[in-house]
Amino acid sequence: MSVNIKNNETGVFAVGGLDEIGKNTYGIQFQDEIILIDAGIRFPEDDLLGIDYVIPDYTYLKENQDKIKGLFISHGHQDHIGGIPYLLKEFNIPIYADAFAMSLIEGSLREHHLLKDTELHTITEDDVIKFRKTSVSFFRVTHSIPEAFGVVVQTPSGNIVHTGDFKFDFTPVGKQANLHKMAKIGSNGVLALLSDSTNAEVEEFTKSERVVGDTIARLVNQQIEGRIIFASFASNISRVQMLINAAIKTGRKISVFGRSMVNAVENGQELGYLTAPEGLFVKANELNNLPASESIILCTGSQGERLAALSRIANGTHQQLSIQPNDTVIFSSSPIPGNKTSVKRVINQLREAGATVIHGKLNNIHTSGHGSREEQKLMLSLIKPKYFVPIHGEHRMLKIHASMAQDIGVPEDNCFVMDNGDVLALTSDTAREAGHFDAEEVYVDGKGIGDIGNIVLRDRRILSDNGLLVVVVTIDVDKRRIVSGPDIISRGFIYMRESEELIRETQKAAFNSIQRSLKFETLNRHKMKSSLIDSLKNFLYKKTERKPMILPVFMEI
Amino acid sequence: MSVNIKNNETGVFAVGGLDEIGKNTYGIQFQDEIILIDAGIRFPEDDLLGIDYVIPDYTYLKENQDKIKGLFISHGHQDHIGGIPYLLKEFNIPIYADAFAMSLIEGSLREHHLLKDTELHTITEDDVIKFRKTSVSFFRVTHSIPEAFGVVVQTPSGNIVHTGDFKFDFTPVGKQANLHKMAKIGSNGVLALLSDSTNAEVEEFTKSERVVGDTIARLVNQQIEGRIIFASFASNISRVQMLINAAIKTGRKISVFGRSMVNAVENGQELGYLTAPEGLFVKANELNNLPASESIILCTGSQGERLAALSRIANGTHQQLSIQPNDTVIFSSSPIPGNKTSVKRVINQLREAGATVIHGKLNNIHTSGHGSREEQKLMLSLIKPKYFVPIHGEHRMLKIHASMAQDIGVPEDNCFVMDNGDVLALTSDTAREAGHFDAEEVYVDGKGIGDIGNIVLRDRRILSDNGLLVVVVTIDVDKRRIVSGPDIISRGFIYMRESEELIRETQKAAFNSIQRSLKFETLNRHKMKSSLIDSLKNFLYKKTERKPMILPVFMEI
Repeated sequence: MSVNIKNNETGVFAVGGLDEIGKNTYGIQFQDEIILIDAGIRFPEDDLLGIDYVIPDYTYLKENQDKIKGLFISHGHQDHIGGIPYLLKEFNIPIYADAFAMSLIEGSLREHHLLKDTELHTITEDDVIKFRKTSVSFFRVTHSIPEAFGVVVQTPSGNIVHTGDFKFDFTPVGKQANLHKMAKIGSNGVLALLSDSTNAEVEEFTKSERVVGDTIARLVNQQIEGRIIFASFASNISRVQMLINAAIKTGRKISVFGRSMVNAVENGQELGYLTAPEGLFVKANELNNLPASESIILCTGSQGERLAALSRIANGTHQQLSIQPNDTVIFSSSPIPGNKTSVKRVINQLREAGATVIHGKLNNIHTSGHGSREEQKLMLSLIKPKYFVPIHGEHRMLKIHASMAQDIGVPEDNCFVMDNGDVLALTSDTAREAGHFDAEEVYVDGKGIGDIGNIVLRDRRILSDNGLLVVVVTIDVDKRRIVSGPDIISRGFIYMRESEELIRETQKAAFNSIQRSLKFETLNRHKMKSSLIDSLKNFLYKKTERKPMILPVFMEI
Repeated sequence: MSVNIKNNETGVFAVGGLDEIGKNTYGIQFQDEIILIDAGIRFPEDDLLGIDYVIPDYTYLKENQDKIKGLFISHGHQDHIGGIPYLLKEFNIPIYADAFAMSLIEGSLREHHLLKDTELHTITEDDVIKFRKTSVSFFRVTHSIPEAFGVVVQTPSGNIVHTGDFKFDFTPVGKQANLHKMAKIGSNGVLALLSDSTNAEVEEFTKSERVVGDTIARLVNQQIEGRIIFASFASNISRVQMLINAAIKTGRKISVFGRSMVNAVENGQELGYLTAPEGLFVKANELNNLPASESIILCTGSQGERLAALSRIANGTHQQLSIQPNDTVIFSSSPIPGNKTSVKRVINQLREAGATVIHGKLNNIHTSGHGSREEQKLMLSLIKPKYFVPIHGEHRMLKIHASMAQDIGVPEDNCFVMDNGDVLALTSDTAREAGHFDAEEVYVDGKGIGDIGNIVLRDRRILSDNGLLVVVVTIDVDKRRIVSGPDIISRGFIYMRESEELIRETQKAAFNSIQRSLKFETLNRHKMKSSLIDSLKNFLYKKTERKPMILPVFMEI
């Protein structure tokens, strides 16, 4: 862990965001000025049980906090803004973001009681934020959110361009990308480009959001007669707008479920990204009075999130809604890696409940927000960087993106496939590796940060498979006898009320095991526990063919 | 036929090039200054028998020849330069073209004895050619030829941009397109864009020439052990270069066949577009001394042209070459519409002769020189025109391209799907249709221009199906008797030497028919001929089940 950026060099580093998609924070450092770009969280894969978010290790930033001039947000997706509260808990810095992202950031800071102490600046594409040695400007890109920007950091070594997330959508539903500004930035000379590698393995030019709009219109206007349940990302406001347009055309009403979707619809209208006529939106109770052919349910949960509206509708635990036989559920989304299992589960539940489910790219009901290979090449061709750093992608994708840059003419020695924590030091005509700092993953579980390790995760996996059985017993160590218990508490294993006999037998088995251990000359508590575990494990497997986690708790008097 | 461009308007018209691919000439006219762009020929479809080329009707240009400031060539393909000799035969104008196109133009003018009287200017991308009221500049695009340009005509009404043929190849084998200049042109404001519509129906981003290069390298380096026969377009010099590179790597020698390919290789080396080591190219007689694994035959004929090297190799009429069992023939091309039948015939002949044939886009051995939908949208997005005129494409493609422009934000009323001869008149903020002139197709057959009509073509079709039988007879009209003949000459019907009996019987049938006619009171020559035709037609059909064209020639004394 030693970083060595010289006085005439500009350092470029990722705290997170390399090696995988999401949870990024990038830094551009010249002398005592650090510009940060984005602070995301990653949604954990299915095997990170109970982990709410993954964020990067902010230690290096914390140590250099006095140099940080500001955090600049490329756009308002969670993997670019979700880490802000956790970053701000470490140290305070001003935040610069567009109006749409800012409305989401404000909501999150309010929740974390960080709003009033944070300096927030809403920026537009034309703003230039000047510091003593560096300055920051922006160029509009297209992505699956109403406002998305690339960031240009002007340093004495040269200009560093960070694309944010982008695709080239020539027929976006919202604002067009500013190709001309990108070309101008490229013409003026770019020292280094940091570019989105998410779809570096995808050949096909990413479909326009307009294609999805056409599909929504066709489905709603012509194809579906019954009730429509439409699940999407709350931040993809333009898609919500397309649903609204289709609803207006067919005289359907929309009822919105899920907190983030309700917020998005309200914020979207307030900020002018969403327009809907008076009376289009109806409450849940009004919805149930409408004919199926006149109602649309717009909800969250397209990622199969367990507590989201759609999952609860699917598994029958939603208070106001349940699947009716003629329902059509549209997933206007594709599963984020790690959510595939959950999404599949929800789809199966919906189908079992009798709904028709439409999902997947093949149906043109979703399109990626990230540009494919040709789009990445177009960005490289417009920006024409001297040095290239692929970002946002698994290592494999970064390497593929780097080789594309070489095809376009960036020399191989000028392409840097970096790891999180690696520091690249640039002058106007040199580049070298300038050390590394720790940049591990940090798991966020509820309000706790970083207190979850691998063993916890292994345990959670076992728990999720077979549940838990706790054996509590109070022992008089001196007299070598059980004074209370053993009591059995189980969770996720068997329904205790209906298994009184099994519980009693388990108690008895535990009692016998403990009694045996108490007869040994030396009281080996560890051995007592493992004997107890072994005997209960065998006993329970024989009875139930399941292997719950067994947790002995010995109280001693 | 009345054209009415007002003094404050700029006229935009196509003499050819709309309604179909190729044979284009476009005009931009402001007051007494006309800028012409390209003068192509079209290769005729299979059903235009014996027609060598199709060119547009140059009458309107001829009538306005004193206004024409020059002919500007976007690139050196035949469908953009092949009409030049025919245009120059009508009137003399200066020609502006890049060095590569100019070398081809010079060759063609030399052949037509037009070289010494024509003013030729070789241009580069940075040149600006200024006239009194208009000026012309260029921007580099990528296409399947080493040099290709878009043309910008600056007029007092605004700038008119003509894309030429283009694709966006971010990893071309030759020079890169100048995206930055396009963006700058767009930023400065463009009144109208005329853009290539060829691939308006193609979704997939056009594959880079580099992909083809990789395929050639793989085939030559790893896959093919025997002799390689490589057929391609002579003008696609970069593909020839990729073949040369692969040959060097594997120690193969190349022998070149076909006049245009020999010229291309010589010119390419002379102009610096092609580099090959001393001794790489060998003569035909040296080739036959090389082992199969060390030889490559590079030839023309990838379009199935009857007289090209490949066709003659295929049908066994080539003097120096014939197919050997281990040969692999690579078609690095795709058939131009109209040539499909011919190409299929050659492929079948090659396979029958025992060669392995590799062809088609699926094998990545060819890629289009034209951009697909996303590339057309990128061009529209960069150039940002106020008015849009789709060019180069069948009517259907022009309409599709226009609707793309509308998706990108050009108002529907500002898109003009024109016909050849239609004139669009523009001011800085108005557009109107300003008349039409005749712009029919003109057929070129050998050295004759425009003397071929529909009947000739119908006849050629019959001839090509069943051949010809000529009956010559000399009649003494006064004495009403046959003095000589009838003699029978047949071509493409039966082999006369082996059909003496049939010939004799035909003579007899002809004799009888004519004798009958001679007995009528009035000698109706027309009726005599049709009687003769009818009787011979029936007779021959009974005998041979064929219907040759029957051509009676009556000599009268």
